[in-house]
Amino acid sequence: MVRGRISRLSVRDVRFPTSLGGHGADAMVSADAMVSADAMVSADAMVSADAMVSADAMVSADAMHTDPDYSAAYVVIETDAEDGIKGCGITFTLGKGTEVVVCAVNALAHHVLNKDLKDIVGDFRGFYRQLTSDGQLRWIGPEKGVVHLATAAVLNAVWDLWAKQEGKPVWKLLVDMDPRMLVSCIDFRYITDVLTEEDALEILQKGQIGKKEREKQMLAQGYPAYTTSCAWLGYSDDTLKQLCAQALKDGWTRFKVKVGADLQDDMRRCQIIRDMIGPEKTLMMDANQRWDVPEAVEWMSKLAKFKPLWIEEPTSPDDILGHATISKALVPLGIGIATGEQCHNRVIFKQLLQAKALQFLQIDSCRLGSVNENLSVLLMAKKFEIPVCPHAGGVGLCELVQHLIIFDYISVSASLENRVCEYVDHLHEHFKYPVMIQRASYMPPKDPGYSTEMKEESVKKHQYPDGEVWKKLLPAQEN
Amino acid sequence: MVRGRISRLSVRDVRFPTSLGGHGADAMVSADAMVSADAMVSADAMVSADAMVSADAMVSADAMHTDPDYSAAYVVIETDAEDGIKGCGITFTLGKGTEVVVCAVNALAHHVLNKDLKDIVGDFRGFYRQLTSDGQLRWIGPEKGVVHLATAAVLNAVWDLWAKQEGKPVWKLLVDMDPRMLVSCIDFRYITDVLTEEDALEILQKGQIGKKEREKQMLAQGYPAYTTSCAWLGYSDDTLKQLCAQALKDGWTRFKVKVGADLQDDMRRCQIIRDMIGPEKTLMMDANQRWDVPEAVEWMSKLAKFKPLWIEEPTSPDDILGHATISKALVPLGIGIATGEQCHNRVIFKQLLQAKALQFLQIDSCRLGSVNENLSVLLMAKKFEIPVCPHAGGVGLCELVQHLIIFDYISVSASLENRVCEYVDHLHEHFKYPVMIQRASYMPPKDPGYSTEMKEESVKKHQYPDGEVWKKLLPAQEN
Repeated sequence: MVRGRISRLSVRDVRFPTSLGGHGADAMVSADAMVSADAMVSADAMVSADAMVSADAMVSADAMHTDPDYSAAYVVIETDAEDGIKGCGITFTLGKGTEVVVCAVNALAHHVLNKDLKDIVGDFRGFYRQLTSDGQLRWIGPEKGVVHLATAAVLNAVWDLWAKQEGKPVWKLLVDMDPRMLVSCIDFRYITDVLTEEDALEILQKGQIGKKEREKQMLAQGYPAYTTSCAWLGYSDDTLKQLCAQALKDGWTRFKVKVGADLQDDMRRCQIIRDMIGPEKTLMMDANQRWDVPEAVEWMSKLAKFKPLWIEEPTSPDDILGHATISKALVPLGIGIATGEQCHNRVIFKQLLQAKALQFLQIDSCRLGSVNENLSVLLMAKKFEIPVCPHAGGVGLCELVQHLIIFDYISVSASLENRVCEYVDHLHEHFKYPVMIQRASYMPPKDPGYSTEMKEESVKKHQYPDGEVWKKLLPAQEN
Repeated sequence: MVRGRISRLSVRDVRFPTSLGGHGADAMVSADAMVSADAMVSADAMVSADAMVSADAMVSADAMHTDPDYSAAYVVIETDAEDGIKGCGITFTLGKGTEVVVCAVNALAHHVLNKDLKDIVGDFRGFYRQLTSDGQLRWIGPEKGVVHLATAAVLNAVWDLWAKQEGKPVWKLLVDMDPRMLVSCIDFRYITDVLTEEDALEILQKGQIGKKEREKQMLAQGYPAYTTSCAWLGYSDDTLKQLCAQALKDGWTRFKVKVGADLQDDMRRCQIIRDMIGPEKTLMMDANQRWDVPEAVEWMSKLAKFKPLWIEEPTSPDDILGHATISKALVPLGIGIATGEQCHNRVIFKQLLQAKALQFLQIDSCRLGSVNENLSVLLMAKKFEIPVCPHAGGVGLCELVQHLIIFDYISVSASLENRVCEYVDHLHEHFKYPVMIQRASYMPPKDPGYSTEMKEESVKKHQYPDGEVWKKLLPAQEN
């Protein structure tokens, strides 16, 4: 089925001015104003683009990333096949630095150009290794940071192209793929002490049992989601209450609150939310790497009374042993550890599992080396029986990761117990095939591809620094 | 003493065509030809630039980095003080991708420009945090890969500037600095479970005892070095023997051999070297991340009979628990584990120490966040009583790291037991203040600064892609 030789790769720096604050009149929309501006968390409706911009201005503050402009390095690959199909890939960034990732994509491009798609997917492990182990480029990684984010963007585009050519959404391409073919996409280097090719095959073969029923179930009910849109830092208590009330009305049953800047403030906000949602619904907490290890234990011991399901990113994403220590202290208090959105490769996830350092594993569709590396992490999680609860939000992360988690349920984990996928309701309107949330669940995408394709008009408008949006904003910022 | 406001930051992409192979007639110089071309490992003499290029073409092959063009992102900062003093900083790279690091330096530049040097060094911890925790940029790290290499280049330039203004080499600036001031340069975030500010202060205060004698000793005898120039992969057995014989003649007593590509080949080469150097001299082995964990144990068990002091980088630099497993298996065979040149920050080093995963800790002057972050690693190593044996070679790494290890001996470790600093004899001629090796030891630099300043002529000639050297080479490569 696959066809064509990659004839062109373009990459663009696309930024949404979600930080706004202080950059012009539009930015002055307050959180409270936002609530009345129809930008409410809504499980069914797509809100208008204008309202979204206002919402985004307030949506994104956590203790470590105080002023993000949600952005993406956006890759498009074209082939010489005459079907006109393009592969689109993104990696998510926070504004500044997107140009660095763009530069890294260009550094990788020669590995992709003039390759037959058939040869790429026919030896996807080899192709992955070629990108990640370039004898010169690997020094500036290896498999981490900028160069790995760039690898993700490129490979996400390849997966989008492959799935589009097959006429299937990526989750379905994966579900229908022969286990041996799936395994041939994975680079097992540095993880064979935990997961060999044979282990992987065995897991996938077991996953074939009951697969059809689970696929039907997903198509009917979707994959359960939770919302992070209610309780970012910096919201007034009134905003918090209003957003929470609306989310409850929209059918959400799981809520995440940002913590870590100020203990007293956290106590008050957690009390408000727990009061609003009642004792039965699920509350998660997210510290965005704010603490050192002893501080994390101390702080969370005080927040334990609000019965959080997990504390997310309590400390440095690199600190495997630190997470293990925190986990050992908090699990007896009923609090699990969740981490992963900034874990830079499968080697880190391997160790988090080995060290019993997490109870919830949060994959990210753009930080790891695309579907290929995420497959290895899903399989390791299955081996350790740790539930995968993906990170999403930002721009495009929901669109991509839904494919991975739906595949995980149908073909790998076969369980929804303790599993839930993050959802944040913004910037979906810029995508050609935006996520569809129904009854607080991700409904499996039906369009071919990886849901990565952005609307050309959105890309053009938000290109940095020459798009219309930035041409207006940048002079204002300079004043 | 410090003065001036940073008025300019420039960064250039400087590459030395050390891979050459196949790029023109010069590249055809074989390893054997090289030996007769005066490019021999020599403890005292600087060899000619032309001979170096030939040597470099052969010097650099290991199992993972088969075709490096030793390169640097080269940063120069200027101030508005009228002393004309510039700060020069580098980070080391392997060719492709240097432009990505350059791009990241430019993304960081706004944090440096228009700052008073006095304010930077007066709150160096705060300044470090500002660079590494930029609310938008940290997403593409944090503190790892490209953006951290860029941070190193920028901060190395600041240290060079500071030391030059004080009229001291960096090692002496550090040795003379009040322990409280030293501690104020360190960001303790994510390491307080192992090293608090108080711990650091206590170590440094103890280090004051006997400091003067150790400084005198260093000035007289230098810091012990070992050579990696004899036994790269791809050398013929004859070349190996000749280089080894010459190195012995030049007074070297410690030798490192690259392994990991082919076991039989390793066995033969190790036998040759052990026969040449005898049973008493020290042999180290370096696998450059070639193996998975079980393979590393198996392979090294077979090489144990050659009595290596250490195996360096047996597996992924991210695999703390993997190194611990390997260490547990090999220490009983008398083999220590060494790693660090690609460990991306202090959090990784912290865990390697916590997990007893290494017996020799290899700092790198360009991968960590300059002197600031290396200070924290030296102090943690002291706390765990693990010897620091720095990584060097490439371009400029010897020049920089000698300052750190000489400071370590005088003010922190106070011991030379099991300690030795890597030395590779190439590309020094491009530096204004090149390393001085005598009797197989690094002699403490006496010129003010961090020995980071390159000769302007070298920089111009090797700028990529517009320097004279590349203008000649690139068209040849394209043919």
